[in-house]
Amino acid sequence: MTLDRTDPEGSIAEAAKAYSNWGRWGADDVLGTLNFLDEARRREAATLIRRGVSFSLAQSFDMDGPQKGWRRRTNPVHTMLDTGTDAALGLQGFPHGLGGADDVIAMPLQCSTQWDGLGHIFDHGKAWNGRDAAKTVTSEGDLVTGIEHMAPHVAGRGVLLDVGRTIGEDGELPDGFAITEEHLTATAGAQGVTVGRGDIVLVRTGQLARTRRDGWGDYAGGAAPGLSFTTAGWLHGSEIAAIATDTWGFEVRPNEFDVAFQPLHQVAIPNIGLLIGEMWDLEALAADCAADGAYAFWLTAAPLPITGAVGSPINPIAVK
Amino acid sequence: MTLDRTDPEGSIAEAAKAYSNWGRWGADDVLGTLNFLDEARRREAATLIRRGVSFSLAQSFDMDGPQKGWRRRTNPVHTMLDTGTDAALGLQGFPHGLGGADDVIAMPLQCSTQWDGLGHIFDHGKAWNGRDAAKTVTSEGDLVTGIEHMAPHVAGRGVLLDVGRTIGEDGELPDGFAITEEHLTATAGAQGVTVGRGDIVLVRTGQLARTRRDGWGDYAGGAAPGLSFTTAGWLHGSEIAAIATDTWGFEVRPNEFDVAFQPLHQVAIPNIGLLIGEMWDLEALAADCAADGAYAFWLTAAPLPITGAVGSPINPIAVK
Amino acid sequence: MTLDRTDPEGSIAEAAKAYSNWGRWGADDVLGTLNFLDEARRREAATLIRRGVSFSLAQSFDMDGPQKGWRRRTNPVHTMLDTGTDAALGLQGFPHGLGGADDVIAMPLQCSTQWDGLGHIFDHGKAWNGRDAAKTVTSEGDLVTGIEHMAPHVAGRGVLLDVGRTIGEDGELPDGFAITEEHLTATAGAQGVTVGRGDIVLVRTGQLARTRRDGWGDYAGGAAPGLSFTTAGWLHGSEIAAIATDTWGFEVRPNEFDVAFQPLHQVAIPNIGLLIGEMWDLEALAADCAADGAYAFWLTAAPLPITGAVGSPINPIAVK
Amino acid sequence: MTLDRTDPEGSIAEAAKAYSNWGRWGADDVLGTLNFLDEARRREAATLIRRGVSFSLAQSFDMDGPQKGWRRRTNPVHTMLDTGTDAALGLQGFPHGLGGADDVIAMPLQCSTQWDGLGHIFDHGKAWNGRDAAKTVTSEGDLVTGIEHMAPHVAGRGVLLDVGRTIGEDGELPDGFAITEEHLTATAGAQGVTVGRGDIVLVRTGQLARTRRDGWGDYAGGAAPGLSFTTAGWLHGSEIAAIATDTWGFEVRPNEFDVAFQPLHQVAIPNIGLLIGEMWDLEALAADCAADGAYAFWLTAAPLPITGAVGSPINPIAVK
Repeated sequence: MTLDRTDPEGSIAEAAKAYSNWGRWGADDVLGTLNFLDEARRREAATLIRRGVSFSLAQSFDMDGPQKGWRRRTNPVHTMLDTGTDAALGLQGFPHGLGGADDVIAMPLQCSTQWDGLGHIFDHGKAWNGRDAAKTVTSEGDLVTGIEHMAPHVAGRGVLLDVGRTIGEDGELPDGFAITEEHLTATAGAQGVTVGRGDIVLVRTGQLARTRRDGWGDYAGGAAPGLSFTTAGWLHGSEIAAIATDTWGFEVRPNEFDVAFQPLHQVAIPNIGLLIGEMWDLEALAADCAADGAYAFWLTAAPLPITGAVGSPINPIAVK
Repeated sequence: MTLDRTDPEGSIAEAAKAYSNWGRWGADDVLGTLNFLDEARRREAATLIRRGVSFSLAQSFDMDGPQKGWRRRTNPVHTMLDTGTDAALGLQGFPHGLGGADDVIAMPLQCSTQWDGLGHIFDHGKAWNGRDAAKTVTSEGDLVTGIEHMAPHVAGRGVLLDVGRTIGEDGELPDGFAITEEHLTATAGAQGVTVGRGDIVLVRTGQLARTRRDGWGDYAGGAAPGLSFTTAGWLHGSEIAAIATDTWGFEVRPNEFDVAFQPLHQVAIPNIGLLIGEMWDLEALAADCAADGAYAFWLTAAPLPITGAVGSPINPIAVK
Repeated sequence: MTLDRTDPEGSIAEAAKAYSNWGRWGADDVLGTLNFLDEARRREAATLIRRGVSFSLAQSFDMDGPQKGWRRRTNPVHTMLDTGTDAALGLQGFPHGLGGADDVIAMPLQCSTQWDGLGHIFDHGKAWNGRDAAKTVTSEGDLVTGIEHMAPHVAGRGVLLDVGRTIGEDGELPDGFAITEEHLTATAGAQGVTVGRGDIVLVRTGQLARTRRDGWGDYAGGAAPGLSFTTAGWLHGSEIAAIATDTWGFEVRPNEFDVAFQPLHQVAIPNIGLLIGEMWDLEALAADCAADGAYAFWLTAAPLPITGAVGSPINPIAVK
Repeated sequence: MTLDRTDPEGSIAEAAKAYSNWGRWGADDVLGTLNFLDEARRREAATLIRRGVSFSLAQSFDMDGPQKGWRRRTNPVHTMLDTGTDAALGLQGFPHGLGGADDVIAMPLQCSTQWDGLGHIFDHGKAWNGRDAAKTVTSEGDLVTGIEHMAPHVAGRGVLLDVGRTIGEDGELPDGFAITEEHLTATAGAQGVTVGRGDIVLVRTGQLARTRRDGWGDYAGGAAPGLSFTTAGWLHGSEIAAIATDTWGFEVRPNEFDVAFQPLHQVAIPNIGLLIGEMWDLEALAADCAADGAYAFWLTAAPLPITGAVGSPINPIAVK
């Protein structure tokens, strides 16, 4: 596809038209590409559980996270309603020596490892499936495609594409590196794995390891490796169910147009209906895949069914 | 075991002593009975994925939930940072027709479907493994056994014990019904399923269906069916990895002593080291199990790795 | 003015037209009737400080408040980041014996004693001064008339109209009692006080005392005494700066039309530009006024300058 | 008093002993030095309202504030429950053309302009009046000296000591500048104002103007001008009711001992019982005082009565 740096509007329009899935699963669809993840695919994926070893692909949820306040996104604030300290002093009023601790969290749903729901991004006022954004996501939340609709579905075949290890130096792609379809294909080939319909694809850039050494800086959305805008066709044609990266923003930063903000999101979410994950921690899994050569696995990444949410914090679990 | 209604303190002490797992997995253990869930058990469990059908076992997270303010527990408050309504009006300042929606949540970690972490309950100032509660869970959270340590582990064999369907009327146990070891064994027998080491056991009472008809009332912790205090021995001896119910409080309410509050928790969490789940929605899964007769399945119920948390909201996924 | 129970739309339109202050203080106005409260009025009001006694007119902010979840309004959730319990155990890491306690709150700005800002209510898509509601209050808050603009202004002459004591039985008006201009005038006359331009008028119904005896029930917005829709003319013509009641909703509940929701708000806020306070605790002040016969006083009721807020919790202070 | 840089423990102990007010107002006292602010003092202060001009001394409450995450302190997160944007589209379900906007805030009580309550700081496990910190401030909040007890009291005579203008260059003291009793006395003398019993003293360093030019940096508690530890005697002997500065931390930063954290707090709050304000915006008031030469005024700075809080956001209002 074309990519004219001076014309994001035109490129987006072209890609949106070419790769739209509007209407593909009916007018009432609330799942988008998750429709590709069917029971048959799940049965095949189950056979990938061979050793019984499991990996959490979530970053921790705490004040050390990437959100510094941009657009009112903060790191999660976790506080205690009751503590062991109080309990030990007998201050809680419970009988027979019982003590308890409870807790509370206040957090953006986009604060750490997460899914972007279908109501997270709009294209010229249109939400997924061509719906009017204004009537889909109000201040009451996503009234149509809230993340709760995805609650039972996100369990199937996961495939790691460790582009950082295959193409980068010391396992990391540099900031600003745009991952193209060729990079994805080359990585799959080098790893001996095939991406197929209904897969949940995990793209490792290696940037997370770098942020752990160097910090996130003032703005987690700064320069980073990520998917090129030109992968829109692959995202559509591969018929994957979902895709996630280990970066803040999924696509390459800065974006590939002179003036732009997350143009690939604008094609992928409202037009393709693609489920996108961000800030996944793929380090331990990637090391294991490099060691045993098995890049496909059983993956469960269930969003919390927060009614009307346009995203959800998650703890994805890969089992090999 | 004995149960003298007038002596919770004595009964708890007796059970705590008889069923303690302190030291069983070393002085540094942070997993408790999750240690029973090993890779071999996971490999066996994977074979239970036969049809590829998946079930979410989570209630929704919204203002219709059970928490009405007791001990500062509220239902989750979900608000939007940006909306489609704003986006459609071009008020967001993004280029090339991009619009976005973000959201925020404030919620107790105990507000809906959840795991109780090992730091959730203390016995006479002692936390799991005999630790000093005062130094384990402070206002900074659980410094030792925070739920983040469980992040990769909760994936394995789930077994549904549908006591409501087997023993109740119209699929529901009445409020105040104490489920004993005999009921659990009889249910397993009737269902043709065996509970084993490392299993995640789901006990359906049917009360959730009732609360959906009648509401939770002023206090979700009111009268409810649940496990009898006398099941402590079974919880210990069965070597299960975790257990969850469809009720607010896991154990029978009112509790079985004249003056008491959650005495089985006091044995199970700090002494046995047992992972306990509450307010799971087992309705759809139970209906499916009744239909196909398969009561064991692959289960993933991954807590969010909130650093220092004593519990976590979850969306458990069962796959058959 | 007319009040046809079957035609709230017509009555509102008539009142909005008759009592509009749009343009009165220029196209850029962000203060509404607070413009009436000028320096001269403040100088006069200062002379009302005679005894030096001060009263807080705020209800407490805690879980015992009136908000039970309607439209996601909860009571305030106050949690501790650090405690004396931790400090006493030396767990905080500070030098030389220092200990500290910090806290956090999550609350609707409308949860307890409050001001409704000018962006709180709209009339057919129009905000105060005729502005387009859609461009005035977005999910980023009130971009034009945020409560921060009122920060320095709300200090002047307060006048208590204790309608409950003057007209009610045992100091309380019954639920559903509509306070008319005649009731207000009669109360002022009986008390020997005159309401004038720039005053902050406090109307006591006595309902708060009742809710303290009987609780708020499931919905704080249930039946209550309050201002009649027919007082719109008086609210406009009296040129008061602000008005507050001791009830949840300022105006009488149920409202005076067959099908309606807070019709007087719809006239008063967007059309008159009137600052309205709710859930003030007037009990101690009213008892003092009844005792000494002085119903006018110095009043400060400063909103927190939360940028873009459409309301603010307040602790109004009356000094006599 | 002595100040041995190597011995904060000794200096604090000496000052605490010399300046303790424990027991001065009885064993049950919950007000500390606010007891000095009596009705007579309020009557005198009222005469200071001469022009009728009012000033807000609060910084704004928004994401541009000073809190970047230290000890889980964030800036306030303000979100909308309903918006004008939704209302204009008729999405809210209200009758007769009514639209509404509501909002929610999540914030540390120490996030912006504030009072430190008496439960905010402890000295070797002791809270104000000699109470056991462990039993005074638990995870349920300050059970004894919660800020709600101060609700009606903080209205009286305010005195500005503009040390920045009197002693600094261009109206600002440099970071690290320790304001001594001599500086305070010289400033009062230069301004022609006398500080007396029951006063609320406002000390302007000018640092706030600097942070507005240069930002707060990564940590608002970095180097700043502020009160010297050696002012403890003056704070005690002057019998002032309260004191506030325009800085994050009230006392000079870095502190005046080699290894220390807020040692003057440790004397002033638990031992003197002094009400301390931080991050006040004194800029507009100070400019006015410099212009008219009147440095005393009527001041109302009412904390929100958040039950059990150890501090409160405030909007202090000065009237001259």
